[in-house]
Amino acid sequence: LDLSKIFNPERIAVVGVSMTNQFHPANIIYNKNFYGYDCETYGVNPKGGELEHRPIYRSVGEIPAKVDLAVVAVKAHQVMDVARDCAAAHVGALVVISGGFAEMGGGGLALQNDLVELCQANSMTLIGPNCFGVYSPPLVDTFFLPPERTVTPRKGDIAVASQSGAFLVDQVMTSFYEAGVGISVAVSMGNKAMVDEECLLQHFIDRTDTRCICFYIEGLDPGVRKFIDSARQVTAQTPIVVYMGGKTERGQAAARSHTAALAGNHDMIAGALRQSGILEAETEREVTSFCKILSFYHHRPLRQCNIAVLSSSGGHGVLASDLASQASLNVAELSADRQQKLRELVEPAIRDIASFGNPIDLTGSATDQDFERSLDYLLAQDDIEAALVLTLPYTPMLTSFVGTRLGQVVKRHDKPVVAYVPNLAKYGMVLEGFELNGIPVVHSIEDGVQMMKALRLLGLYAGGEDPGCPR
Amino acid sequence: LDLSKIFNPERIAVVGVSMTNQFHPANIIYNKNFYGYDCETYGVNPKGGELEHRPIYRSVGEIPAKVDLAVVAVKAHQVMDVARDCAAAHVGALVVISGGFAEMGGGGLALQNDLVELCQANSMTLIGPNCFGVYSPPLVDTFFLPPERTVTPRKGDIAVASQSGAFLVDQVMTSFYEAGVGISVAVSMGNKAMVDEECLLQHFIDRTDTRCICFYIEGLDPGVRKFIDSARQVTAQTPIVVYMGGKTERGQAAARSHTAALAGNHDMIAGALRQSGILEAETEREVTSFCKILSFYHHRPLRQCNIAVLSSSGGHGVLASDLASQASLNVAELSADRQQKLRELVEPAIRDIASFGNPIDLTGSATDQDFERSLDYLLAQDDIEAALVLTLPYTPMLTSFVGTRLGQVVKRHDKPVVAYVPNLAKYGMVLEGFELNGIPVVHSIEDGVQMMKALRLLGLYAGGEDPGCPR
Repeated sequence: LDLSKIFNPERIAVVGVSMTNQFHPANIIYNKNFYGYDCETYGVNPKGGELEHRPIYRSVGEIPAKVDLAVVAVKAHQVMDVARDCAAAHVGALVVISGGFAEMGGGGLALQNDLVELCQANSMTLIGPNCFGVYSPPLVDTFFLPPERTVTPRKGDIAVASQSGAFLVDQVMTSFYEAGVGISVAVSMGNKAMVDEECLLQHFIDRTDTRCICFYIEGLDPGVRKFIDSARQVTAQTPIVVYMGGKTERGQAAARSHTAALAGNHDMIAGALRQSGILEAETEREVTSFCKILSFYHHRPLRQCNIAVLSSSGGHGVLASDLASQASLNVAELSADRQQKLRELVEPAIRDIASFGNPIDLTGSATDQDFERSLDYLLAQDDIEAALVLTLPYTPMLTSFVGTRLGQVVKRHDKPVVAYVPNLAKYGMVLEGFELNGIPVVHSIEDGVQMMKALRLLGLYAGGEDPGCPR
Repeated sequence: LDLSKIFNPERIAVVGVSMTNQFHPANIIYNKNFYGYDCETYGVNPKGGELEHRPIYRSVGEIPAKVDLAVVAVKAHQVMDVARDCAAAHVGALVVISGGFAEMGGGGLALQNDLVELCQANSMTLIGPNCFGVYSPPLVDTFFLPPERTVTPRKGDIAVASQSGAFLVDQVMTSFYEAGVGISVAVSMGNKAMVDEECLLQHFIDRTDTRCICFYIEGLDPGVRKFIDSARQVTAQTPIVVYMGGKTERGQAAARSHTAALAGNHDMIAGALRQSGILEAETEREVTSFCKILSFYHHRPLRQCNIAVLSSSGGHGVLASDLASQASLNVAELSADRQQKLRELVEPAIRDIASFGNPIDLTGSATDQDFERSLDYLLAQDDIEAALVLTLPYTPMLTSFVGTRLGQVVKRHDKPVVAYVPNLAKYGMVLEGFELNGIPVVHSIEDGVQMMKALRLLGLYAGGEDPGCPR
């Protein structure tokens, strides 16, 4: 399937623009692309006429230029007529926003089959129906939501596809924006009558701007099966994160009426994902944590899962130890010898009050330098593969420069480090210091442990020669 | 034990103020109380002299006024001398910030026992040692962190006590601030040589400004045992939320060196908590979710655990159904008859595209009125006990007034409702509309389900006459 017209259209038509309702999905799509994206944008409504002194065409065929992509937001029963018009005008691809197809069963399913047949016969690639479509900056964005009401993550290297548009907009776009995770492209597949997971996977791995792939699926159907099979060839190179909706009976019932998803046994699907080396995120938050750590440390599997926890607070060390244990990570006690070495590295002021056992508690009197020298020592140990640094900017000696200093340590040792900084706007300078220097920041210890878990799973699925991680 | 001098001191002495180090804990405590709290504040240092043109006293006895509370931040080996001086000056209470006691074992434990004996003999109430002490606005705050580096939650009706100071400051103070949860008072107990959970529980239940109590504990010792026993008499009236650190072996090891906590089997402690009707928060996030819902709906147990999920997105409905099922809540399908009634209540524009089965998906074209009329109908059903409303402010018809309208519906039916609003600053007006009208807002569906779980546990532990909740 040729997806180029979907992701790189030069000219789009938006079919269904209302002459009276500025909130109509077609009007929102028309306006956001006309004003905000690089594609040429044409409006279509059978009545024709003018909207805000710009021509509205009676049909796609009437547009005086070759249209690459038609975005269709009309009532279900009108979609076939629009599609025929598009076929006659040699349009390359359709994004059908409209609902009222397979998710309604019966007649809706028949209508969807007719639509697929027509598209296939005319070499039109079809996204949807019953979807948000595609977000491919800076060219095109068919998500029918007013831009001032949404946020868009920065440009980055994660491609995302979702069976649910709302999950994509809310859990992915919003959470990624908040966490500073960048995306290359996003697709809401809806009923995936033609373009499905398998098809998008093949496209994503060919993109030079994409290094990690994320899917939201709602059950198991032939497309998902094929996708999981194909993923096996891919995951050693390009990590894939999957989050499943419809895990419980009630969730499955809701999914059926949502996107006509076929139910599948969750344990069985989870097993298949593991076998293909796909990282299953178990919660929405894990989706963001997994994608964020993978965008910082592309492919850095943990083998033994020995991590160091470096903190300026004993209580945080206790919490981190609990969470790490529950996630099958080792926070192994340091030998007395190593503890003594660490003690000698820190300032005299904290030597007698700090704990060096791992978790290491440098206390609230720790300085940037104490953190820097301790982390440097810890990462130099062969058996320590990664570190979780718990930075509490309310301790008075810590400066906003600490992230910049620790970033240099990490570059020297080339081992993954995650920093915890509490989620307050006023700690923004501390956060920036870390992230600008290559260390991802989390706002809860749990999220940090989830990130380490992602690297542990990478090691586990890669069939590590050194299977040291507790299973 | 008399805790009045701890929570309501008129005059405090801060012992250990440094003449040279402005970041010394004693200096931070001295300055924050001198400038920011109602208590009279005196500085003490054996050298005496002046600091910024204010007198520094050689001893507490030298202060020309009766001191209610002495905050001690000197080296461990100097603490006994200071305590003797305080006893001679008839000080009512000590907060000993200093570490170097039982958490170090051996000599530290002996020193701690001597300190307790001295305090008991002189009727001085002792908080700590090895603690942050007390936050009792607007009178006193002994947390030795610069106020510009921390946040404080609004005044509210939740009392908090923690074995870990850092947990209190970070997980509680910061998270509560972010979530808009208010606290009446907060105590960091440290080694709890004298004032422990049991003792604080008795104080908290007597406070007229407190309607909910939250503890962080790190293992089981006689004080915790007694607290759990006493709680049994209290929880029917005042809900108690407990979060446990040191759940795993590694966490327990860390806790031992942190606050000399005695390890306890987590399952056993969890069982004891349940029997006393205490709500155990399983994650840090649950601490905030539980406390927030309890501060909005003080004591509103769910009996059958039937909840309605009202959304403008199918995908969100699927996620909510999964999460609710996993938390033993029923999102039961509505009868065809009820679905039809709902359909007639909403605007014609969405009648054919919305799903009314529960989760109810009003679609992205839903208006404030569609939400209002649907919620009104749902809460009027006898068997529906609560509702989770998923509000997505990026749908174009929704206004910032929606929370105000739904608040009136909730007041009419007097059933608990939680609203999900994605966590973006620009949705602040939507959030305010809900919370000012009595509906708590969460920023993840998971948090909303956790809140319902808290009400489910209330019903379960109250020995509900109607044990309809799945166990």
